[in-house]
This record gives sequence, C-alpha cells and structure tokens, in this order.
Amino acid sequence: LEPQSKTLPTTKEKHIHVELGDRSYKIIVSGSEVTNATQAIVRMADQILDVLSDLTHAVILGDEAVASSVSEPLERELSGRKIRVSAAQIPSGETSKSVAELARLWEWMLSAGVDRRSVVIAIGGGVTGDLAGFAAATYARGLRVVQIPTTLLSMVDSSVGGKTGINLPGAKNMVGAFWQPSLVIADSITLNTLPDREYVSGLAEVIKYGVIEDPDFFHWLEVNIQSLICRDSGALREAISRSCESKARVVGDDERETSGRRAILNYGHTFAHAIEATAGYGQLLHGEAVAIGMQMAASLAIALGRADQNLLDRQTRLLVQSNLPIKFPEANVPGMLEIMRRDKKVEYGKLRFVLPTKIGHVELVGNIDESHVVAAIQAHV
Amino acid sequence: LEPQSKTLPTTKEKHIHVELGDRSYKIIVSGSEVTNATQAIVRMADQILDVLSDLTHAVILGDEAVASSVSEPLERELSGRKIRVSAAQIPSGETSKSVAELARLWEWMLSAGVDRRSVVIAIGGGVTGDLAGFAAATYARGLRVVQIPTTLLSMVDSSVGGKTGINLPGAKNMVGAFWQPSLVIADSITLNTLPDREYVSGLAEVIKYGVIEDPDFFHWLEVNIQSLICRDSGALREAISRSCESKARVVGDDERETSGRRAILNYGHTFAHAIEATAGYGQLLHGEAVAIGMQMAASLAIALGRADQNLLDRQTRLLVQSNLPIKFPEANVPGMLEIMRRDKKVEYGKLRFVLPTKIGHVELVGNIDESHVVAAIQAHV
Repeated sequence: LEPQSKTLPTTKEKHIHVELGDRSYKIIVSGSEVTNATQAIVRMADQILDVLSDLTHAVILGDEAVASSVSEPLERELSGRKIRVSAAQIPSGETSKSVAELARLWEWMLSAGVDRRSVVIAIGGGVTGDLAGFAAATYARGLRVVQIPTTLLSMVDSSVGGKTGINLPGAKNMVGAFWQPSLVIADSITLNTLPDREYVSGLAEVIKYGVIEDPDFFHWLEVNIQSLICRDSGALREAISRSCESKARVVGDDERETSGRRAILNYGHTFAHAIEATAGYGQLLHGEAVAIGMQMAASLAIALGRADQNLLDRQTRLLVQSNLPIKFPEANVPGMLEIMRRDKKVEYGKLRFVLPTKIGHVELVGNIDESHVVAAIQAHV
Repeated sequence: LEPQSKTLPTTKEKHIHVELGDRSYKIIVSGSEVTNATQAIVRMADQILDVLSDLTHAVILGDEAVASSVSEPLERELSGRKIRVSAAQIPSGETSKSVAELARLWEWMLSAGVDRRSVVIAIGGGVTGDLAGFAAATYARGLRVVQIPTTLLSMVDSSVGGKTGINLPGAKNMVGAFWQPSLVIADSITLNTLPDREYVSGLAEVIKYGVIEDPDFFHWLEVNIQSLICRDSGALREAISRSCESKARVVGDDERETSGRRAILNYGHTFAHAIEATAGYGQLLHGEAVAIGMQMAASLAIALGRADQNLLDRQTRLLVQSNLPIKFPEANVPGMLEIMRRDKKVEYGKLRFVLPTKIGHVELVGNIDESHVVAAIQAHV
C-alpha cells in the first residue's frame, strides 16, 4: 500500500513510477471506496498541486461527456485555490482527432493567453488525451500536461507512454509526438458514469497485458474477471495498476519505439486498425477491435506453428467472459490488407505482426505471407 | 582543417559538432572555392549517405526558389544512387508557415507513402526549415531530418538548435517542436543566387553572436566586414562556422530553453518580433528587424545603466557597414507593446529583455518598466 492522502479520509491509492530519465512521471491509481465525487475532485486538485507546485494557469481541455462530472468541478476547485483556469470542451468521438479540431484548439489557446508556463489538464478518454496531449506538445513548443483519463481504456493504455496525436484521413495516429505527462491521475470514481460497452472495451487492453508479458496477471484475470465486470473497486485498482505497470515496463525499455520492444504493445492492433478503418471509425469501439485482432493474431501464430491451441482457448474464454466480441463477420479482407500494407509497423513493404508464443510472451515477426494473414482473418468472421 | 571529401577535388570544410547527448549532430560548413555547382550536389549526396547510411527513401521538401539550383539536382543525384525520392515544393515566404500549409504537407506525405524510416531533406531558408522540420517532427511521431539551409540567415540561425514550427494568426512560431536534425549541410555555394538584401539580412544574426557571447568574433567582424559583404568564400566559411559554434555552445547548455541560457539568443528579438508583427510580416526581412531590435535593446540597456554608449556605437557602425537598417520610422509603439506583452518570453505578465552589458556579454533582465521600452523604441524611429 502506498502513502495516504494528506487532507482526505483514508483512501487506497497505488503510485506507479514510469521511469524515463528526466521525463519520468507518476501515475496515481485511486480507488473510490471511501470517497464521494466531491472528495475525489478535492483529492485531484491536491494531487496536481503536490506535483506541480508552481501552477498558476491551468488549461483544462475536457471531453464534453465529463464536463459536469469532472471538468467543471475541478475548474471550480482550482479557481477556489486562486489558480487562473481556462477551460475548453472537446467534442466526444474519434472525429475530434482531426487537423481541424487541433487548429481550433491552438487558436483557442492563443486567445486564452496560454503561455509556456501554463499547464494543460486533459480530462477524458483516449481521444481527448491524444488531441489535448498533442496540442500541449506543440503549443509554445511544449507545455506540461496532467492526464486525467476517465475511461478504462485510456487509464490502462493511452495515459502511459506519452504517445499523442491526431488522425489524417484514412490514417489513424499518423501525426503526433511523444510527449510525456507530468502526472497521470486514474481515479476509478470517474468510471461510474461510463457506459457498459465502453467499460468492457477497456478490458480488451487489460487482457492484452496478460498475454504479452505478464502470465501471472493473466491468471489473476481468469480468477477475478467477474469482480472486474461488476466494477469492484479493489479489482479495478488492481487491474488498472498492473496494466499500467506492465505498459510502464515496456515503455521504459523503449520510449520512442526504436528497439522494437515497444512494438509488443501492438499485439492485436495491426488487425484492429485494419478492422476499424474498413468498418469506418466508430462502428466498433477500439477495444472491441483489439479483442477481435488479438484472436486473429493468435490464430496467425498457431498457423505459423508459433503457439498452440490452448493459448487461443484461454484468450477466447476470457474475452467471452468479458462480453467482448471475438468475431468480425463484416470483414472486408482486401480492404483490411490494403490498410495493413501502409501500417506504420510495415518496414520496407513487408508485413510484420506481434505474435504470441505462450501466455505472457510475444514476439515481433516479420516477412509474413499474406495468405496466412487472410486465413487468420477468415478464422474469425 | 577537417577531413577532406573522399570522392571530390580538395575542398575546405569545417565540421561543427552540436553536443546534445543522443540528439547530437554535425554541421558541415562547406566552402565553394574549388567546386562547381554539380560537384557540390555530388558532395551533398556523399555527406548525407555518410551520416544516414541506411537511407532508402528521401523526402525532399524544398523552397520553390531553390528547386532548379539545389532540390532537383539533388533529387536526380540521389535517384541515380538507387534511393527512392519523393519531392514537394514549398512556396517561398513566411505565409507558408501556416496550419494550412502544414496540413497540406502532412497529407502529401501520407499520399507519398512516407513512413517512419523515411528521411526528410529540408532545403531552403528558415521558413522551409521550420515548416519541413515541424512536419518531420510530427509525421509518424518523428522522422529524421537533414537540413540544407540555403540562406545565410538559416545557416547561422535556424539550422542550429532544433527549433521548428509554424505561426498562428498574429503569433509567430507559436506552435512547434524541438526537433534536432541528423545532419546540417551549410554550403556557401547555395548562397550564390541569394539576393543582396536577403544576404545582408543574415549578417544581422552573425553580428548578434559577437554581441551576445563572442567578443573576439565581434572584433573579427569589424576587421573583415568588407570581405563578408563581398561574399568572399573564406570569410563566409569563417563567419558561418563561428556563428554556428556560438549558437551550438548556447543550445548545448540549454536545449529546451529551460535554464534561461538559451534566451540570450533572443537578443534584439523581442523588439524585432514586435516590429515584424506590427509592420505586417514580410515588410521587413527578419534580419532587418533584428538589426533594428538590437539597436533598441542596446539603447534600453544604456537607459537602465547596464551598458555604455561605446557598445551602441560599435554595434551601429557594424550594422551600417553591412547596409542593415538601424531605424524603424514607421514604428507603431502601442501596437508593438501589445505584441511584446504576449511574447513567449513574457512570464507572469512581466516584460523581459536580453540586454548587453558589454560586447560579448548579455543578461536576461526582467520586470522592466514600459516607459523605458517606449523610449528605447523612440530612440530608433
């Protein structure tokens, strides 16, 4: 158990240190057992000011979906502490990760008098974190950022590792920057209003960490999946912090995706991106596409003799218990292949995939024949 | 004297190492005495491949003004060496540093199949280097860049230090990234076609280095200014390399402008930006505005009792001998003040200026009364 909050009733927090030299930062995973929403906002303000003690101008960029539950209460709390606050809402949904929305944010920041001492506080899911993080990375050549993820997916995925960015037409995350936050606050109380489908979508990335590098965690998930489905606070804190620890280990080894190590986080994602792009962004939630993509990747590994059926069976069971989809009947195979050929993971024109050999271990495999890829897709339609 | 080129006739080169840890890079300053234009292009290709031996896809982003003299010959030379080349032209002029032009470049790069292994080669002045550098910093979260500055200003200023970016309406360089190049090639042969007014404009930044941190160089300039005006190859190589060394020393101490050391490079620039913004970008060349801004800054230093008249006299003489403007009769003082108040160097609302105490030494001075600033402007109208 980690140090307790100074000013609030006893609560349970885990602090995860992401080691990146002079870009290191802390993720605070807070449970909600003994706090109410008001106390959680006070605690967030405490946590922010504890790390950023020189804060004088907070720039809150929040997803419109959490405006009344998180952004506006935090704005009032910080204003009450004599901090200047500028706030803007970001429309929900992947379409906000566009050049147009980025340009709108940049110009709004200019009009709000944002300068290099200002601190951006990004509140929302992956879309908000990616867009606001990229705006922060580039405005005045880089502002400090606090990420407050409010979806399970963004708590366990995009809040760790510093990837920020936007989409170009037909190319997800094609423009962006590596930009590490100064602090991440993952408070499970913000998940209370998250729709079931979005919550479950986040479980796909949680399960991914078990497959790629933490077999004990995979086993823990097999035992505790029902508690997680029911959003039990203790189970959630454990799942979020073990996922963040897993990602932090990988990112710490390979911050800028140069050694290949970081690529293992893309398990299931080459298929998933192709699914999302051909289905039209927004048809499937990202985690749903990742669940299906993990199934395709596991089948590809089996076809190449790299993994056995038991791996796929255990993965399938956990995904099904989580109510995640494991098939994509509408697959447009030629369309998916075309997308995969221009995936950023393609090097020198050859398809590469992250494939498991056993639960807890994956490898980056290059030069894969397209016929195997097609068969892996067709195994899950 | 540095190592000679392997495949070409004897030439004179200086190699400047910019020390930035794992982001260190080399600036090659090439003279033109014994090479013609064709040989210079061959030499550039050699220099690029020597540093980037794994180059397979070169993305040439060149100012339209040097398309026929540099970009197209280099494209042919690299293509002849079996390297895939994609090339796009950037319209000349500050208006290219816009969100619209950046978005156009990003989408063109996507259509050209640019991926994370591609290397951007930016050819042109500061506008091209800043825009292409920022596109490279952000496309696929960062591509390697070779900067080939083709103006004196960009050789001695923007090619060192990794600042890239674009303008927002009314706010120069408000969006951008620190993104270090892999290699800079400053070949004075590319200056042959540079108009006199642009060439002279670059001398303002050269003189700046003497004032801010290299008194010996300032003295060298006083002795050699006529050779420089006449674009003598040897004098040029000396002036470019000493300027780059000066900037590299400062940038090496403070890569991201956090310690305050790097701010000294902005000597004259707070006034200059205000002059440029109120005159309308493009009325004055940047170096011309810097020359006037240095005069205003020197007068401000004198008014505050920080420098003596002799400093201003020596600076004035060198600027006049260089045919640089030293007055700005059209100054819109209230407009300039408004711009200065929102300058990125403003912190907590107080005006700060880089002011000299003697030739070769400047200091960052904060909390300056606006009446002194107004008087300093009015001393040079």
